[in-house]
Amino acid sequence: MSAMRTAQRRDALRATAAERELDAVLVTNLLNVRYLTGFTGSNAALLVRAGGPDLFATDGRYTTQAGIQVPDVELLVDRTTVPALAAEAVRPRPGGKGAGRIGYESHDLTVDAHASLLRVLAEAVGGREPELVSIRRAVEAQRAIKDDDEIEALRRACAVADRALAELAAEGALRPGRTELQVGRELDARMLELGAEAPSFETIVATGANSAIPHHRPDATVLQDGDFLKLDFGATVDGYHSDMTRTVVLGHAADWQREIYDLVAASQAAGRAAVAVGADVVAVDAASRTVIENAGHGEHFTHGLGHGVGLEIHEAPGISPLGAGTLAAGMAVTVEPGVYLPGHGGVRIEDTLVVTADAPELLTLTSKELLVI
Amino acid sequence: MSAMRTAQRRDALRATAAERELDAVLVTNLLNVRYLTGFTGSNAALLVRAGGPDLFATDGRYTTQAGIQVPDVELLVDRTTVPALAAEAVRPRPGGKGAGRIGYESHDLTVDAHASLLRVLAEAVGGREPELVSIRRAVEAQRAIKDDDEIEALRRACAVADRALAELAAEGALRPGRTELQVGRELDARMLELGAEAPSFETIVATGANSAIPHHRPDATVLQDGDFLKLDFGATVDGYHSDMTRTVVLGHAADWQREIYDLVAASQAAGRAAVAVGADVVAVDAASRTVIENAGHGEHFTHGLGHGVGLEIHEAPGISPLGAGTLAAGMAVTVEPGVYLPGHGGVRIEDTLVVTADAPELLTLTSKELLVI
Repeated sequence: MSAMRTAQRRDALRATAAERELDAVLVTNLLNVRYLTGFTGSNAALLVRAGGPDLFATDGRYTTQAGIQVPDVELLVDRTTVPALAAEAVRPRPGGKGAGRIGYESHDLTVDAHASLLRVLAEAVGGREPELVSIRRAVEAQRAIKDDDEIEALRRACAVADRALAELAAEGALRPGRTELQVGRELDARMLELGAEAPSFETIVATGANSAIPHHRPDATVLQDGDFLKLDFGATVDGYHSDMTRTVVLGHAADWQREIYDLVAASQAAGRAAVAVGADVVAVDAASRTVIENAGHGEHFTHGLGHGVGLEIHEAPGISPLGAGTLAAGMAVTVEPGVYLPGHGGVRIEDTLVVTADAPELLTLTSKELLVI
Repeated sequence: MSAMRTAQRRDALRATAAERELDAVLVTNLLNVRYLTGFTGSNAALLVRAGGPDLFATDGRYTTQAGIQVPDVELLVDRTTVPALAAEAVRPRPGGKGAGRIGYESHDLTVDAHASLLRVLAEAVGGREPELVSIRRAVEAQRAIKDDDEIEALRRACAVADRALAELAAEGALRPGRTELQVGRELDARMLELGAEAPSFETIVATGANSAIPHHRPDATVLQDGDFLKLDFGATVDGYHSDMTRTVVLGHAADWQREIYDLVAASQAAGRAAVAVGADVVAVDAASRTVIENAGHGEHFTHGLGHGVGLEIHEAPGISPLGAGTLAAGMAVTVEPGVYLPGHGGVRIEDTLVVTADAPELLTLTSKELLVI
């Protein structure tokens, strides 16, 4: 992450602070801190001042790392990052007074941390007591629109997942006789070897009747001839998560399997086609869902169509009947309809895409033809 | 995790609730929910009622999983788990009134979640408005003392890490010419193949001058003859984390390397010898630290001696000059002194142990003799 890029992101938050008449914003959510600074350690907070300069806090373990990853923001080494930054925020500065209105992340700060923040502010010297104002998910809203560095990281994360699956399939690792757990662990290990920092989430490997469970955890179930094998997995690269689901058939495909596979594939194509700048997320969900409903399987598609991906595996925007808002250029989202026949088997097909002014850019490139292996 | 075991844990929390005159406790920390129920999904909360029965909430994705993992607690399927459980808590029940005093986890609940909880309680029918009372870290305090199932999981997690390192060393993977990143990824992949769910944390591989950075992130630095190679890593098994550090020398060891290695080894042995039921955590830290201070390297040991491990990689108790409290039988802790010579090189030696009435049980069994490879 270039220092120039993170400085741009902090300036965008500074503009939000100015709009909301805040003197400073205290960023406590660790992923938001990472987004705004490039810092990847496990303890940090950031103070963005309306009039600059910013101040970054972490503990002594990370002094060296902070110097390398956050060279352009003044460093405060203190184990209690949040109260320490708050004390700095309210301290009168040369040529100015301390912050009066301080934004904070009420969806992240715990009740206890909020209480200790209030204690610090109550001790602020001079003038009226500073005020804490929630900025809600202002940084998350910023994060929903990815910049070029982020899209490149997502591209690489998706490429790792594509390649890991291709290699395992080519090596015959997806054959009858193996267990879900074996396949899942190999997929995870292969992604690491190909450069992933970690799997994006607990890899889902679900075969036979298990494939009808949307979020099945891989177990000792043995892959059998004629079964569906559903793989939902992703790789994390530079902190960015890919997300892809493919469903294959082992040995030979029965008619009912081809039927629901083709249905989900058609639904997924309709969903992807609806992904465009300005599209309402409810309408995008509906474009895909209608295909499945019209085939009489509406009740077997039991979840939303998709979600944003980035530094988190699930982030804004949600694409579902309960969602709100419209898509914008630079959003990275999944499209993942499924049809699940309880006790029988299920199919889900999922891609990660980026919204652009033209057709969306497809990041997960593995074929969606029904693969019989 | 057996249902009997998790029922015992809920009963222990129920006893705490009774002591504190609470009618119910709302557990929101996901690891605490896992500890008390066995549930491993990503969205859940638990209501423990002083007079029973308990109530477990998760969303529709996890209905099947909840049935398998939490067969003995009544299930509430609702996406907004916390307010939904609160509404159930205050609802008058057959033969009794709704809860009046409800415990909650103020170190976990966010300011926003707390506000929505208060809204639910304000709508409670009849009588005075129910009261929210923080239980602080009551469940974490319970978790600090491991039961037999937990110690067995930790044993297995440590065994995976031991074996992964032994295999890599035997295969010559730790040789000059390779990079820190290559070694780190292979170690992670091998732990997965050996049955780990994930690495316990971001594996530290630090060679040469990087070994003087306590929490160095592996990079493209090449392993070179005569360098220290410091490996700090662990495996997660059934949710439990192992933690081990070993430092080896590549090719041949110089006198200064043997000298600080022997010093850290002596300090670590002194720390382990001090781990006993009733020992003050500050005294345990001091037993190890004094050895390093007496050799004139006090300023080069820049962190605490150790920490508890379990469902989290860092949990209670902290063993450091700033710690408080005493060790008890069943606590699982690390002992990990280090000496870091900036720009030069550093050594850390770390084990995971369980406090017992006799000598502590050593879970990480890899040799601590200075290995020259």
